[in-house]
Amino acid sequence: MTSSDTRTSYPEAAIEADPTVPMIHIWRDFAATPEQLYRAHTDPELARQWMGPAHRTVEIQQWDARDGGSWRFTDSSADDVQSFRGTFHTVRPDRIVQTFTWEGRPDDVALETMTFEELGDGRTRLHGRSLCDSFEARDGWLRSGMETGVNEGYAALDALLAAGQV
Amino acid sequence: MTSSDTRTSYPEAAIEADPTVPMIHIWRDFAATPEQLYRAHTDPELARQWMGPAHRTVEIQQWDARDGGSWRFTDSSADDVQSFRGTFHTVRPDRIVQTFTWEGRPDDVALETMTFEELGDGRTRLHGRSLCDSFEARDGWLRSGMETGVNEGYAALDALLAAGQV
Repeated sequence: MTSSDTRTSYPEAAIEADPTVPMIHIWRDFAATPEQLYRAHTDPELARQWMGPAHRTVEIQQWDARDGGSWRFTDSSADDVQSFRGTFHTVRPDRIVQTFTWEGRPDDVALETMTFEELGDGRTRLHGRSLCDSFEARDGWLRSGMETGVNEGYAALDALLAAGQV
Repeated sequence: MTSSDTRTSYPEAAIEADPTVPMIHIWRDFAATPEQLYRAHTDPELARQWMGPAHRTVEIQQWDARDGGSWRFTDSSADDVQSFRGTFHTVRPDRIVQTFTWEGRPDDVALETMTFEELGDGRTRLHGRSLCDSFEARDGWLRSGMETGVNEGYAALDALLAAGQV
């Protein structure tokens, strides 16, 4: 199992393939409390402002962040619209578990788990895990350019936090 | 990938560990149409009558079988009550994708996919896949005695089908 303990800090996201199971790990540190990261992921008005690549517009159709709720958003530029949807299995201050599908491949479903670990000094480490049903599907995501959305999204979240808006 | 094609029929459930990913496969043939198997899994009054081991009582608290819905049931004997819950990610006549948690281990979440393949002659093959986030979790399920609930549940579904109740 890949461990976050081997690295001191993640000012940029580390995106890594798990060596054993078809999972992607993402680690990222924020100047935030766990409560702020929880809020940024569960409040649709906040999530809309930071998720996805810069220069694209996110619109949230559904964001019912509770055990058994569901979510859907679109991410658009002048040229195209992409849609994503899923369910919230677990929504707790320290842990969010949700399903994730890009509607362009409706039969591909990932199971995503996010945890928020307090580091002290007002910093918190986000650990995201995306579990796919095959290594091919997992490696397809890693080749998809997903790092752009991850990095630009988390930079936008940094800015929201710095502006005191979370 | 384990394939159902290597075996002719599954009058009893075949429960197999995937060789590559932390997944359990279940194959089972029924004297039913795909529509009947879909109904048996999505209608809570039908599901209640066949799910789980014989000699235990299933009570359904929630069974909102639609994309983005959720479910919960309890399974009890005179001595104990077990609770299970999850979400429905995809509900289509040919495919159901749902999350699954035994509430005794609330952080363990499996992603389950069921497909219904018409075999002809009024028979349909159910293929269930349960994806876990580690091989340890998967192997724990395989050692849990899950085959009792699977086999007795599907035998009860055979009886409902034979009685024309699905």
